[in-house]
Amino acid sequence: MRVAVLGLGLIGGSVGIAARERAGAHVVGWDPDPEVGPVAREHGAVDEATPTLVGALAGADVAFAAAPVDALGELVADALRAAGPDCVVSDVGSVKSPVVDAAYGDPRFVGGHPVAGAEAAGVAHARGDLFDGAVWYLTPTARTDGMLYQRLYKLVAAFGAHPEAIEPEVHDRRMSVVSHLPHVIANLLVDLAARELEGGAPGIGGSFRDATRVAGANPRLWAGIYAANREALSDQLDAAIAQLGRARDELRAGGDLREWQEAVARDRRMLLEERAVGVPQRELRIAVTNRPGVVAEIALALGREGINISDMSLAPSWDATQGTVTLWCAADHADRATTLIGELGFPVA
Amino acid sequence: MRVAVLGLGLIGGSVGIAARERAGAHVVGWDPDPEVGPVAREHGAVDEATPTLVGALAGADVAFAAAPVDALGELVADALRAAGPDCVVSDVGSVKSPVVDAAYGDPRFVGGHPVAGAEAAGVAHARGDLFDGAVWYLTPTARTDGMLYQRLYKLVAAFGAHPEAIEPEVHDRRMSVVSHLPHVIANLLVDLAARELEGGAPGIGGSFRDATRVAGANPRLWAGIYAANREALSDQLDAAIAQLGRARDELRAGGDLREWQEAVARDRRMLLEERAVGVPQRELRIAVTNRPGVVAEIALALGREGINISDMSLAPSWDATQGTVTLWCAADHADRATTLIGELGFPVA
Repeated sequence: MRVAVLGLGLIGGSVGIAARERAGAHVVGWDPDPEVGPVAREHGAVDEATPTLVGALAGADVAFAAAPVDALGELVADALRAAGPDCVVSDVGSVKSPVVDAAYGDPRFVGGHPVAGAEAAGVAHARGDLFDGAVWYLTPTARTDGMLYQRLYKLVAAFGAHPEAIEPEVHDRRMSVVSHLPHVIANLLVDLAARELEGGAPGIGGSFRDATRVAGANPRLWAGIYAANREALSDQLDAAIAQLGRARDELRAGGDLREWQEAVARDRRMLLEERAVGVPQRELRIAVTNRPGVVAEIALALGREGINISDMSLAPSWDATQGTVTLWCAADHADRATTLIGELGFPVA
Repeated sequence: MRVAVLGLGLIGGSVGIAARERAGAHVVGWDPDPEVGPVAREHGAVDEATPTLVGALAGADVAFAAAPVDALGELVADALRAAGPDCVVSDVGSVKSPVVDAAYGDPRFVGGHPVAGAEAAGVAHARGDLFDGAVWYLTPTARTDGMLYQRLYKLVAAFGAHPEAIEPEVHDRRMSVVSHLPHVIANLLVDLAARELEGGAPGIGGSFRDATRVAGANPRLWAGIYAANREALSDQLDAAIAQLGRARDELRAGGDLREWQEAVARDRRMLLEERAVGVPQRELRIAVTNRPGVVAEIALALGREGINISDMSLAPSWDATQGTVTLWCAADHADRATTLIGELGFPVA
């Protein structure tokens, strides 16, 4: 199988490595920056790098367009013009409706979105295991060629991902609420805090840091995502404004938001504990002394028994001399984990 | 010195232990629940537990009211009635204006707020080192007796905290933006996601979890805090609604929020890197394979050289097979930390 990768960044490069290592494909790569191709070859992301997009697509069975969201429509249209009649063309963008529109119902196009990534950009950080266990959304339409869809599906499954078919609009609405709105909200919190604390303030603890981890993330990339998903995101902003208005009105009328607080506690449990990860997860909160080595002790004690920590957050109280470690692990490991952590002398809440 | 602790939960109990161990005080405790006193004594939080508030205050030099925010006003008023003329009365609530008002300008009252805590509630989790390095806000007024203020200041400093004098209104505005609004916002994100994802959805990753860690936290406690700080919090909600409205309008008008994203990136760096912690911090982002032991390896490698991790967050990509570890450490340790982590084979972004 010949795979073309158009755009050799972190995701494109990782697609290349996975295709070579896990599907035995011959991978031809192209990048608009001519200096990237040789780096990609050296890193094992491609078998060959071509100077033109047309060259990369010659004889390709599958092509992945891996550019920032704002450049994807044009790249996909170019790829469909250059690709042969039996080549399935996909992309890896995190907003799907615009690129599906840009493909004008071409039966060879299937939009895609691997929900995976890393902070580090560039092909030098590409890894063949980046998609292990990740959901990989695919957006076939009524006009999609079934054989081509099957080929793409099997290939991303071979990468270790879980392909999941979805309507572009449903995908974009879903992402607007679990990813794009949280980015806007993180910006909001930083913005308001910066206005209020102009004179400087000790008083920004772990919870503020957690809530704003993605604030101001890669402006070019994220501006492109916001713009590409402007309708769904604007709708979520309407809903957010309405709900914050209700909360404010309740407060001003003498209420205390207690019922909402209780409903949200139930909703979060339902959303995260039952659905987030393949197996049911449980959250363990541990009060620790935040000196070098504490996190290591806990992680090692669990690791020794093969208990994987699927998420972890250490929130220091103020200046890092104390902390709460929040761990997530598989629910059926949680009791054993609680025992092990207790044996280290840390109470689990 | 005789210290009275009124309310023997996590904070009250920790005050008791710190007063005994670090200030050599004789601590007398009272709790509205008669079963708590004996537990507190067994845990070392008090030298004696009394069945009445008046008994606890007899001969006290310092008294701490440690009840949930919505019960503090009454408790402080009771304490001031029962305390002698040379007893300084303080509290530990996270909203200050209402309790300062409730003290009616009594020269013996100084409001307080140790910015410390843990997920685990109850005197059984109390610790004498809970306040190590924490900011402890104090709200003296023009009517406060200087000698009594000095006594309180020296005592909380002996606990290991950093006392900082502040106007009640300034304190409450500051907390509304760095703590109370983020809690409301976390609720909002969960609320909207629960509405959108009613049918269930794989697609809630680490960033959503980070952003909603405090959603639905202890409803009784937090409803009390929201209500106690209703004015400052309502004002922040007004500002939040206005800013989200501007973002939505820009999106609907065809914009992409890029300038805002860039400004926020600068603001966050300014807020967190320069101010949050006593010493300047730097953020290191590390792409790792999320198997048992990785976090331990990193933490141990840094711990061995005495590099303290002041904050840590592990964000898995979707289902926990890959991850990004974000670490914060002292800026002048960051280069060495980067080298050590690099030697383990993990690229630092």
